[in-house]
Amino acid sequence: MSSAAANTFLGHCRTLLGDPHVLTLAGEMEPYLTDWRGRFTGSALAVLRPGTAQEVADTVRACAQWRVPIVPQGGKTGLVLGSVPDGSGTAVVLSLARLDRIRHIDAFNRTITVDAGCILQAVQQAAQDQGCLFPLSLAAEGSCTIGGNLATNAGGTAVLRYGNMRELCLGLEVVTPQGELWDGLRALRKDNTGYDLRDLYIGAEGTLGIITGAVLKLYPQPKACITALAALPSPDAALELLKLAQDRCGASLTGFELMSAFCLHLVRTHFPQLPQPFTAAHPQYVLLELSSSESEAHAVALLEQTIGAALERHIIHDAVVASSIAQSQALWQLREHIPLAQAKAGKNIKHDISLPVSVIPSFIAQTAPQLQRAFPGCQLVCFGHMGDGNLHFNVAPPEGIGHEAFLANQAEVNRLVHDAVNHFDGSISAEHGIGALKRDELARYKAPLELALMRAIKQALDPHNLMNPGKIL
Amino acid sequence: MSSAAANTFLGHCRTLLGDPHVLTLAGEMEPYLTDWRGRFTGSALAVLRPGTAQEVADTVRACAQWRVPIVPQGGKTGLVLGSVPDGSGTAVVLSLARLDRIRHIDAFNRTITVDAGCILQAVQQAAQDQGCLFPLSLAAEGSCTIGGNLATNAGGTAVLRYGNMRELCLGLEVVTPQGELWDGLRALRKDNTGYDLRDLYIGAEGTLGIITGAVLKLYPQPKACITALAALPSPDAALELLKLAQDRCGASLTGFELMSAFCLHLVRTHFPQLPQPFTAAHPQYVLLELSSSESEAHAVALLEQTIGAALERHIIHDAVVASSIAQSQALWQLREHIPLAQAKAGKNIKHDISLPVSVIPSFIAQTAPQLQRAFPGCQLVCFGHMGDGNLHFNVAPPEGIGHEAFLANQAEVNRLVHDAVNHFDGSISAEHGIGALKRDELARYKAPLELALMRAIKQALDPHNLMNPGKIL
Repeated sequence: MSSAAANTFLGHCRTLLGDPHVLTLAGEMEPYLTDWRGRFTGSALAVLRPGTAQEVADTVRACAQWRVPIVPQGGKTGLVLGSVPDGSGTAVVLSLARLDRIRHIDAFNRTITVDAGCILQAVQQAAQDQGCLFPLSLAAEGSCTIGGNLATNAGGTAVLRYGNMRELCLGLEVVTPQGELWDGLRALRKDNTGYDLRDLYIGAEGTLGIITGAVLKLYPQPKACITALAALPSPDAALELLKLAQDRCGASLTGFELMSAFCLHLVRTHFPQLPQPFTAAHPQYVLLELSSSESEAHAVALLEQTIGAALERHIIHDAVVASSIAQSQALWQLREHIPLAQAKAGKNIKHDISLPVSVIPSFIAQTAPQLQRAFPGCQLVCFGHMGDGNLHFNVAPPEGIGHEAFLANQAEVNRLVHDAVNHFDGSISAEHGIGALKRDELARYKAPLELALMRAIKQALDPHNLMNPGKIL
Repeated sequence: MSSAAANTFLGHCRTLLGDPHVLTLAGEMEPYLTDWRGRFTGSALAVLRPGTAQEVADTVRACAQWRVPIVPQGGKTGLVLGSVPDGSGTAVVLSLARLDRIRHIDAFNRTITVDAGCILQAVQQAAQDQGCLFPLSLAAEGSCTIGGNLATNAGGTAVLRYGNMRELCLGLEVVTPQGELWDGLRALRKDNTGYDLRDLYIGAEGTLGIITGAVLKLYPQPKACITALAALPSPDAALELLKLAQDRCGASLTGFELMSAFCLHLVRTHFPQLPQPFTAAHPQYVLLELSSSESEAHAVALLEQTIGAALERHIIHDAVVASSIAQSQALWQLREHIPLAQAKAGKNIKHDISLPVSVIPSFIAQTAPQLQRAFPGCQLVCFGHMGDGNLHFNVAPPEGIGHEAFLANQAEVNRLVHDAVNHFDGSISAEHGIGALKRDELARYKAPLELALMRAIKQALDPHNLMNPGKIL
């Protein structure tokens, strides 16, 4: 675009949004251009900050007219470079941050209607104020937005019981690449009237349109969530424990997190003040969470019976069951401090993978030795949402090897791990999405037919490739 | 197509499938051409019966080459003329009935992989044989197929707890309109690698491709399902009861069915042998079902506490709680006999609608008198899955008026009911789909932009409009 055309376009944007919401100075734009982990800074023609869904539509129509590419941005907490622009400087960043209204709560329909720019934590709180639960929960919940959660089909710790963001959404409001506003804000549990546009936009990472609002499902607030920490000989035993716990607890089992001995060792090293319940070391640990709609006593009793049955069958070596909600939170802290301990230990090579739950033991048994052979002494930080088949399968340097030096192996480590995931019919991105970071990996592992189907849809809905170009495809 | 071209095409199909699986005689084809309710008989060039997914792909490739439209067909139990051809005789019916293998059960991953032609009941049984539950349950389960359930995103009686067919499916195998075979048979709970093709094919009623196989979710088999029947003053009270029951029982509440007094009156008239628990008449009834992963005693106790709380708060007039699984089934019989009693009473005008749960009382309070004013003396048969917002809102003739004569009002009755549904932001097809029957209604109520987006996707994936033409769009 010529500099004159750019000026006309930006002038039009200022008329639409007001001067304060069209940022073009480098210093003003910088916070919108650098990714969450600080690994990459892109550049942009401008940062646009519309305040309503209609302003988003008007802005997108202007972009379509001038053929300006658009990078939609929510809380910018993504981990795959999905919400920052590339280095060309031709795109605008369209921030949804000003669309932050809770539009409506319907406690009898158990739904909440929100703007896309609402912070996840604000939605959780608004639900709680009405005695309801919005179950999506993840580390970035204080910063991430509902629009970003939808665009990446966010997962987190409650998927075992409540599903991913896709399962938590009933309706959407979307601005199309042509700048039209689609009102799909339906609050219905059953609606079979044509193609499922909603689920096409969810997970599309802003490449098919911009989500401006959503109707989300709410659930009754459980009366109590109680945890137990079990020590086990192996991932095989963890699989047995999962089956037993689900058979006995059904939907009350709301968390099932696997942690290897090395993970708790890292926590002990970097957070010695956190009490760890076992004196002896065990190869694996599982954190179980049980939610009861009845009472704390019911949750404790059911969890104790479940743990008792697992001990009796020699599935687990040892266990502690929290006797209160406070004790439960202390056990969760061990799990939550694994990523923090990793950060203190230094950089490692991360993988966000998923597998059929039943093959997790075989996957670990095969892949861990492969890594040892290829990178002798490397340290595996393996933990995650085993109940969903989702592992954070991170590889840290051998003792004494510098972290930066080890990171030079990133491409080979990724290849080894992702090839193994592919061999076991898993996914190379369980919950983080593709963005720009995993685009080439996607092209490597997806069947050409599936890529062609995706491209046909992209071409049909966004023929000028203006929506978040270079992401996913 | 010329008669010579047709002969060449059919010869090619015979080479692909073998003579016994290419039916062209009127008598052979007839069962494939008449819809489930016997209201319409179409015509076809041939009925093709491939035996494997690869044969489906080969057949579709031949159809694409000769530009022959395809009507995919499963158990043919649909209610909206979605799986029978029109009267032109230009299309082939492609029956999936021979694809009826259970391919694989993974009890630890809680998944079952099946051919699209498997009967729903066979899948339920295969799951049960492994101690698991496949929760989809609906009246046609002895005849309908998984492929049809997926193509129409089937609902049924367990949606409150387990969701529609869309929520029960993890992966798909699909033949595209070009005759390519897409292997999307993933068995993963988390997988964020690109566009959600799966949910686009689910609910598309065979207009975007043919589903040949699927990976479905399984659940632990509950230890007991116990029911209660409550008598209430109004739909408003039913809404209060639903909230109370969900708050107290959470995911254990697996059924919540509303039935008006007239519904149970119909059952009493036509099935006097079925015992009804209340001597006094009440305006509304609710059947609650509670499933426990613990024990029958736990289910009974929790349901009794819930009913007790509702009585104490004067939400309900009276109630019976089943004290055994056998008694529970007897209460379900009352609900299940409503459609049978309707059939004995004679034809009526049916609507399969959904609404935000919270507006159901207002919808009924407004629409029932409107119907009375427009069609004095008409009788409303209002019942359904209130927990999902799904009502079967059927209108029967006034006493003494012939059923056929009343059915002449069908278009006006539909208009009144569907306009009211639209006013309350509901859906004119909660679980049956659109097919050919509701295509014009869809065009009337959907926003032009949403129809345009659907057409763009249809055009991108099936540019020659060969897949189930005339259905949905």
